[in-house]
Amino acid sequence: MTDFAKYFDSFAGVLGADNVWRGERECAPYNHDNKITGLTPIYVLRPGSVPEVQGVMRICNEHGLPVIARGAGTGNVGGAVCEGPAVMLDMMRMDRIIALDSVSMTVKVEAGLITQKLQTTVEEAGLFYPPDPASADACTIGGNAATNAGGLRAVKYGVTKDYVLGLRVVLADGRLLETGRATRKGVVGYDLTSLFVGSEGTLGVICELTLKLVRRPDCRKTMAASFMDIEHCAEGVEKILQSPVLPSGIEMVDEYCLAAVERSGKDLRGITAPFLLIELDGRKNVVEEEAALLDEILTKIGAKTRVAENEKQSREIWDARRVISDALKEMAPKKIAEDVAVPISALAKTLGEIEQLAKRLALQHAVYGHAGDGNLHVNVFFDPDEQGAPEKIEEFRGALFDLTLDNGGTISGEHGVGISKRPFIARELSAVSLDLHRSMKELFDPRGILNPGKIWPRK
Amino acid sequence: MTDFAKYFDSFAGVLGADNVWRGERECAPYNHDNKITGLTPIYVLRPGSVPEVQGVMRICNEHGLPVIARGAGTGNVGGAVCEGPAVMLDMMRMDRIIALDSVSMTVKVEAGLITQKLQTTVEEAGLFYPPDPASADACTIGGNAATNAGGLRAVKYGVTKDYVLGLRVVLADGRLLETGRATRKGVVGYDLTSLFVGSEGTLGVICELTLKLVRRPDCRKTMAASFMDIEHCAEGVEKILQSPVLPSGIEMVDEYCLAAVERSGKDLRGITAPFLLIELDGRKNVVEEEAALLDEILTKIGAKTRVAENEKQSREIWDARRVISDALKEMAPKKIAEDVAVPISALAKTLGEIEQLAKRLALQHAVYGHAGDGNLHVNVFFDPDEQGAPEKIEEFRGALFDLTLDNGGTISGEHGVGISKRPFIARELSAVSLDLHRSMKELFDPRGILNPGKIWPRK
Repeated sequence: MTDFAKYFDSFAGVLGADNVWRGERECAPYNHDNKITGLTPIYVLRPGSVPEVQGVMRICNEHGLPVIARGAGTGNVGGAVCEGPAVMLDMMRMDRIIALDSVSMTVKVEAGLITQKLQTTVEEAGLFYPPDPASADACTIGGNAATNAGGLRAVKYGVTKDYVLGLRVVLADGRLLETGRATRKGVVGYDLTSLFVGSEGTLGVICELTLKLVRRPDCRKTMAASFMDIEHCAEGVEKILQSPVLPSGIEMVDEYCLAAVERSGKDLRGITAPFLLIELDGRKNVVEEEAALLDEILTKIGAKTRVAENEKQSREIWDARRVISDALKEMAPKKIAEDVAVPISALAKTLGEIEQLAKRLALQHAVYGHAGDGNLHVNVFFDPDEQGAPEKIEEFRGALFDLTLDNGGTISGEHGVGISKRPFIARELSAVSLDLHRSMKELFDPRGILNPGKIWPRK
Repeated sequence: MTDFAKYFDSFAGVLGADNVWRGERECAPYNHDNKITGLTPIYVLRPGSVPEVQGVMRICNEHGLPVIARGAGTGNVGGAVCEGPAVMLDMMRMDRIIALDSVSMTVKVEAGLITQKLQTTVEEAGLFYPPDPASADACTIGGNAATNAGGLRAVKYGVTKDYVLGLRVVLADGRLLETGRATRKGVVGYDLTSLFVGSEGTLGVICELTLKLVRRPDCRKTMAASFMDIEHCAEGVEKILQSPVLPSGIEMVDEYCLAAVERSGKDLRGITAPFLLIELDGRKNVVEEEAALLDEILTKIGAKTRVAENEKQSREIWDARRVISDALKEMAPKKIAEDVAVPISALAKTLGEIEQLAKRLALQHAVYGHAGDGNLHVNVFFDPDEQGAPEKIEEFRGALFDLTLDNGGTISGEHGVGISKRPFIARELSAVSLDLHRSMKELFDPRGILNPGKIWPRK
C-alpha cells in the first residue's frame, strides 16, 4: 500500500502547510456526500489557484495517488466519496467571479463558487443564470458542471451543460487544457467542453468555467394545480407542454411528500396533493396572461388551481419544494431515492408501474421531481432491521431501472452514476459504448488516478 | 497506392451493384462542396441502412480505405471533399423519419433527411425544429450534426447540438454505437453525443439522430432596422439583447450585400443598408407587443425601422437574406468568405477593425451574418489574375483570424474547419488541446480512414 504520509512536504510545498489537512478530525467531514458515507480521505488539499491544482496533480500522477475533486459534497450518488485511500481536492477556496461581461452575457468563474452566489451576483447586473439545483444555496458551480446538474428550471432553460461555453481543466498529468470559447457559437475542434461536463471528475479537474447567461426575467409567477391522482398529474404535464405556454419549471409532488413537508413545518397554503408546481417567468403582462391561459387549460381537465398572489407566497411554495428531500429523510431516515427519467409520453405509464411495483414489494414509496422533464425522484422507505429488507430494496431498484429503460428512459436524469448506480449502467449502455468509455477514461487518465472506480463497474 | 478497383465486388455484395458508383461521369458531381473543389472520389457508395453502412466500414477498415461521409455537400470549408483517393458515402438514401413522438416532442430520423423536410413535417404536427441553416432546403440533418450547423435562429434557440439528444453512429471498424437517449435529461456516461456533433466525419458515421423539438410558435414577425453605419448596427444588436425581448434571430446586412441581393432580382421593399433583420416568434399578441417595444428602442437610437405587414412580406425579406451568399458569388465569382465569431461586446470593434484591414489591403469587402450571435460572414473579393492577389488574400485571412482571436473570438462560428481553416487552428487551440484531439482521433479511428486529413493539420 502506498505510504501517503511521505507526500506531506511535497503538497505543502505547492499549497502551503495550512492548506494540507490530514488526520481524522480535519478530514472526517469529507467522508460523505448528501446520501453516501465512505472513507475519510488521507489528505484534504485546498488549492487556491490553477497552478496549485497543477502542482498537486503532478505529484499525484507521478506517484499514482488517487485524487477526488469535490465541491460542496451535495451529490447524491457518492461521486465525491472515497472508497479507498485517496487525496481529496477541496475546490471551495477557488470561488472568485473572474469577469462578468454584461453586454456579451457571459461570466467567467472559478469552480468553487457557490451556485446561489453566482445567481444573485449576475441578477444584480440584470442577468440570469438559469440552472437551479435544489441545493443551489450550498452546491458549487464546478460540482454542477462535473455532474451536469439539472434542477428546477430545466423545462424552459435546460441543464448546466447548456450554459457552459468553455472550461479550464487540469488534466491527470497536471497539464492545463482550455476547452471551448467565450462566444455563443463556435465549431473549432471537438466539443471537449461537453465531454468534461457530467464526467464526474473522472477525466480532469474543472477549475474555471465560462458560462452563458440570459437576460433576467422581469417577473415570475408560481401556480399549483392539484389533481385527483398521480396519473392525472401526468396528463396535466402533457397538456401544459402542448399549450403555447412554456413554463420555466413543472414539478410534481405526491401525497407522501406533501405530508413530509407539512410535518417539517412548511406551509403550503392549503394546496392538496398530488399537485404540479408551475413556474412562469418573463415580462409581467405576458406572465399574467400565460397564468390565466394555463389556469383555464388545467381547470378544464379537473385540476384545482391556485396562483400565488405575490413574491412572498411564491417563495414559500418553492422553499417547501426545495426541502422535500430533507423532509423525507427526517420522516423516514432509511430510504433510497432514485432519479430516473422517461419521455413525457411514458410518464403516466411509468408512474403507474412504479406504484404497482411498490405495492407488490409492500414498500412505502413517494414520488416527486421534475415532471416537466420526465425526471422523477422515486423514494422508497424501509426498516433496516427487518429481515430481507436490503434484498427487497435491491429488487426494487433493479425493477425500477428495468421498467424505466423499457419505457425509453434513463436510470439517471440528473444525479449521475457515482457509486450507487455503477452496478446498473450496463443495463443502459451497450458493450460497445462501455468499451469506448473505458478507452476514453484510459486516454485522459492513463494511471487511473482521477476519481478511480467511479461510474465504471470494475471489470 | 491502394488498388481500389478490386473492392467493387465487396461493396456490391453489401449494397447491391446499383448503389456502387464509379467512374468520372457518376462520381465527378461529388468532387466539391459549396465552396471548394477537390478530387473525384474513386467510389460513391449509397447505403440504405445502418447494417449497410456497417458492412462498408468493415471493408474499408480492413483494407485501410479512406471514407468520406457526405450529406448534400452544401458545406463551405471542404469538409466533405476528397483530397486523395477515397470512398465517398452518400448518405442521402437514408432519409426516413423513423418516429415522431409529439407528446414527448422528439423525432428520430435518418441522417440523409433534408433539413427543410424535417422542419415542415414536424410543423404539420404542431412542433418546431428550430435550427435553420441558410441552406435548409438542400442540406441534410446528418450534415448539420456533423458540422454542428448554426443558422438564422440561434439567438433564441441555439444551434444543432442543442437539439441532438442521441445518435446511432457507425464507428471506423463497423461497430454500431448508440449515444445519448430519448429523454430531455440524462447523465449516464460521457456526453459522446456532443462529441460526434461537430466532429466533421472524423470520428464516426452519423446514421440516425434523435432530436429534441419544441412547440411550434403561433406567429412570426419580421422587422428591419436600418442604421447610418455598421458600427451603429452593432450598437443596435447590443440594445436588442439588453431589452426584455429575445428575437429568434438578429441578422446584419451591409451595403455591398444589399446591392448584390438587389442585383439578383430580390426586392427588399426599400430597406436601406446597413440594416438588421430581426425575427420575433411566439404567441400573436406577445409578438405584436414585442415588435412595438423593439421599434421604440431602435428608433430612439436613430434606426429607421420597418415591420413586415404579413407573412408574404416576411418571406420575401428572408428569401433575400438567404440568397446573399449566392448573390455575392454571382457579382464577384472570386471571393473568399470567412465565418468568424466574437463576443457581442467586441462586435463593433471587430467590425471597425475588419473595415480598416480591408482598406489597408485595398480589398473590397462585404459583411453579413448572424450578428445576434456575434457571428459574421466576412467576404473579400479579388481578381485572381492580378499579381500578388493570392498572397494578399492569405494576408487578409491571417490578419482577420488574429484580430478575431484578439477580440476573444473564434475563427469559425458555424462553418467548421474542414480543409480551409486547417492551417489556422493552432492559432486558436493550444498545443495541449491539439495533442489531446489527435489522441482522440486515433482512439476512434486507429487506421485513420475517417475523413483523413480534415480539421487536423498534418504534423
